[in-house]
Amino acid sequence: MLGQMMQQPLLVSSLLVHAERHHGEREIVSRRVEGDLHRTTYRELAARSRRLANALTKLGVQRSERVATLAWNGYRHMELYFAVSGMGAVLHTLNPRLHPEQLLYIAEHAEDQALFFDLTFLPLVAAVAGRLQKVRHWVALCARAHLPADAAKIPGLLCYEDLIDAHHDRFDWPEFDENSASSLCYTSGTTGNPKGVLYSHRSTLLHTYAAALPDALNCSATDSILPVVPMFHVNAWGLPYVGCMTGAKLVFPGPALDGKSLYELFESEQVTLSAGVPTVWQGLLAYVQGNGLKFSSMRRTVIGGSACPPAMLRAFGEGLGVHVLHAWGMTETSPLGTTCAFKAAHAGLDKDGRYALMAKQGRAIFGVDMKVVDDAGQELPFGSEQQGELLVRGPWVIESYFKDVGGSPLRSDAAGRGWFPTGDVATIDADGYMHITDRSKDVIKSGGEWIGSIDLENIAMAHPAVAMAACIGVPHPKWDERPLLVVVKKPGAEVTRDELLASFGGKIAKWWLPDDVVFVDAIPLGATGKMQKNKLREQFRDYQLPSA
Amino acid sequence: MLGQMMQQPLLVSSLLVHAERHHGEREIVSRRVEGDLHRTTYRELAARSRRLANALTKLGVQRSERVATLAWNGYRHMELYFAVSGMGAVLHTLNPRLHPEQLLYIAEHAEDQALFFDLTFLPLVAAVAGRLQKVRHWVALCARAHLPADAAKIPGLLCYEDLIDAHHDRFDWPEFDENSASSLCYTSGTTGNPKGVLYSHRSTLLHTYAAALPDALNCSATDSILPVVPMFHVNAWGLPYVGCMTGAKLVFPGPALDGKSLYELFESEQVTLSAGVPTVWQGLLAYVQGNGLKFSSMRRTVIGGSACPPAMLRAFGEGLGVHVLHAWGMTETSPLGTTCAFKAAHAGLDKDGRYALMAKQGRAIFGVDMKVVDDAGQELPFGSEQQGELLVRGPWVIESYFKDVGGSPLRSDAAGRGWFPTGDVATIDADGYMHITDRSKDVIKSGGEWIGSIDLENIAMAHPAVAMAACIGVPHPKWDERPLLVVVKKPGAEVTRDELLASFGGKIAKWWLPDDVVFVDAIPLGATGKMQKNKLREQFRDYQLPSA
Repeated sequence: MLGQMMQQPLLVSSLLVHAERHHGEREIVSRRVEGDLHRTTYRELAARSRRLANALTKLGVQRSERVATLAWNGYRHMELYFAVSGMGAVLHTLNPRLHPEQLLYIAEHAEDQALFFDLTFLPLVAAVAGRLQKVRHWVALCARAHLPADAAKIPGLLCYEDLIDAHHDRFDWPEFDENSASSLCYTSGTTGNPKGVLYSHRSTLLHTYAAALPDALNCSATDSILPVVPMFHVNAWGLPYVGCMTGAKLVFPGPALDGKSLYELFESEQVTLSAGVPTVWQGLLAYVQGNGLKFSSMRRTVIGGSACPPAMLRAFGEGLGVHVLHAWGMTETSPLGTTCAFKAAHAGLDKDGRYALMAKQGRAIFGVDMKVVDDAGQELPFGSEQQGELLVRGPWVIESYFKDVGGSPLRSDAAGRGWFPTGDVATIDADGYMHITDRSKDVIKSGGEWIGSIDLENIAMAHPAVAMAACIGVPHPKWDERPLLVVVKKPGAEVTRDELLASFGGKIAKWWLPDDVVFVDAIPLGATGKMQKNKLREQFRDYQLPSA
Repeated sequence: MLGQMMQQPLLVSSLLVHAERHHGEREIVSRRVEGDLHRTTYRELAARSRRLANALTKLGVQRSERVATLAWNGYRHMELYFAVSGMGAVLHTLNPRLHPEQLLYIAEHAEDQALFFDLTFLPLVAAVAGRLQKVRHWVALCARAHLPADAAKIPGLLCYEDLIDAHHDRFDWPEFDENSASSLCYTSGTTGNPKGVLYSHRSTLLHTYAAALPDALNCSATDSILPVVPMFHVNAWGLPYVGCMTGAKLVFPGPALDGKSLYELFESEQVTLSAGVPTVWQGLLAYVQGNGLKFSSMRRTVIGGSACPPAMLRAFGEGLGVHVLHAWGMTETSPLGTTCAFKAAHAGLDKDGRYALMAKQGRAIFGVDMKVVDDAGQELPFGSEQQGELLVRGPWVIESYFKDVGGSPLRSDAAGRGWFPTGDVATIDADGYMHITDRSKDVIKSGGEWIGSIDLENIAMAHPAVAMAACIGVPHPKWDERPLLVVVKKPGAEVTRDELLASFGGKIAKWWLPDDVVFVDAIPLGATGKMQKNKLREQFRDYQLPSA
């Protein structure tokens, strides 16, 4: 027997309709590539999204076809989010930080029919345009007056504002199966070709509800949200959708992600909540601390993508009064899986206890379930403190990659059937708080035991002279692998190998102590701002450890 | 093209699984009919729910069959919520405040197979049991030791704790279509037979996500929630489900709803959030104010079901530091439709401005859309200040009544097709805040114009001598109807007709002023605590107004 409530599909367009209708006056502020600060509202954004949907229809974009973007965080990118998904096509956000060859592979694999790009990426687009035969339309995200002379290199280049102006703002968002694809984002795996994760309208809407909950991102109409996390990276963790659902003000930083630009935007737009990966906050923290500044409105920031070093938690919390909410997720999980919101039982924790808890990635948001399993696939009970691979499942977790590349990513063994193996190594404590100890491929295997590289990096990062630290396993004749610490010093700061190793005293088991330290000028970062330890391992493959 | 995320149905059982797994230690505290305060946890509740599901299976309860309850708010009732819906049967919550003849009608119409009841209702059950042939199992919600001697009047009566004890706690919640029926609640209409609203697992889960959002009930794991609103009334506004989703502590008051009992429970369990209809708060406010008490932990309460008088908003807010969140909903809307959460634009309001806003029922929660239409069915624009009938739609709004009684409740005219007409008369302001001015059947029609009875009642309620006020239209030879104010004075308080009418001065248009005042000992309340104005209209049908 079926219930007798209205059947309404969960569609991305409904978010925009709600925002226009119930939060029409709320602002969306964008730092543009053109250099200025642009202000619009949900009402205007909705009208322009409908114009864009008419334009895309006129250009011949069909239901389910992919429309690609190469763009910073901004209102035009957001219009593409809603126009493309809303009309039933699939928004494909390309990551401009990828190597051009990878971009070519991805755009071809996705069969992108149109590509919308910010002017920043004109050289990149000019370089690849001739090799992307399937792309029928190239659109520069600007007004015609801003088109540079060399734009003529791209035959038939269209101008976004012309497109918008040429169409009226009446468009009825179609109704269709909520399981239809809405957007596509490729993972930048460290080995092999990137693989596409194809989100549905249903998965996006459910993720949006869950993301806005008080113990997740806790977003309300009174918030002013600045997503530093790019809209080309897992849909900016869902924040453009959360904005529409809640009526929060959205502040988009465009290409200006340096500490000074971000700080000024936080202040001028009275931002209350931000979100990004740890590496983007380094510059902001340095600028704010270096100039003795404070935040007048920012109270919370969400950090995920990589583990947030405890030193950064304290720098924000104790130094600046900004509570860091540690979160965990992946492209394959839309991305939110866990957030480190406190439980009532934690009310009595002292400061050190609170920070120790905040360093964990947190507990499952309702919708996602998780477990940690041993090598045999058996679940390790919560509170066992044993580390194992983290498995997750839920209605916004991947079932299979786009075009089924690589076969089913899910576990097929009896114990893990139907679960997605994250590739993360983690523990789960008795309260259900998950703590990532490593990526499974980054784990250092010493004498048959695992050493978690993240703990070692966090201790190194706490040293005042250290700007960035990576710990990798290098081959060792007796122990198979031993940890090597690779460190970037802060500008002008000094620290010796022995001083740094001495700072580990009493904080870890003795056999976890890195065998050596090397100082480098830079650690390679991937397209999503994560340290590329595979490159470091390659670089230090033949490194002679003193103990070897 | 479909997205490639996991297909997981939205099921009520997943709420319990989440609560057990991620909030297993969190408490559920219940004042029992037995008189004591009972403490359990989500972990224990989940295990007992599985035992109960085994017991129901053994009793022969099949998928989709209705299992009825006649019970107060408590942990056993909550176990029924999850065991019955979780196994795929339908939880039917009967309202014990209904007349026995209505109860009989409802239980027969629903074809209830089993009835679980608190001992409070033994006399009621004993009176109707012989006439309910389809009910195969009668279960008293207690331990055998608490069964009174006269329980033997009900042949084959089972004892709940025996049932639980006799079965093991291993039960795999089945997976099925999320559109399956999960629970059933009858509306107690003022005319005609009650009609059933049949919720689905999908509608329940989506409503739960929306209800927990920061601008809705704003529930987190650190909350301690006491639902005064009964679990037999639209699933206690969804709070048992919200508890599981968020890991909030739940505090159930059982049958003890007097001011003293409630206050003591608020304090002893450090309740942070409560919810109920305006009439239940009268007793609590009188007790707290009369004894010069304060709340040490309670900061918010949700008031809905009927319009909350502005005087009550201020009594809670100014006197006790408890923020009242005004909300609107109906049995047909699961129930949450709107909540009166502020927007950023309201930050500059002064105190009077804030209270004026808080007196509105609020703005649409994402998922529900609403509009106000004129007599011709045309939408009145937001901000027009014109009143009209409120229409709503959304995935947790009714499509049709159980067994399609009364035909489709939805509008069939072109302008309103697919919308549910609420029977409420309302305005919507420019910011999207809806304000109920009346029930359409309670509107007073004077000289072709509408007079909203709620505004008049609110003014009367603000007088210190008034405990309760109802304003009804009575026949008038010239104007068709004119308003008559029916008032219950506070114990020991005095006020005259003329004094009371004088208090309306300057607050309303002159032609809205009630023509007369009658003082009565009591105003009849319906089964959900709302004033039964139809009975008052009947009673005063021949009342001679001085102007007539």
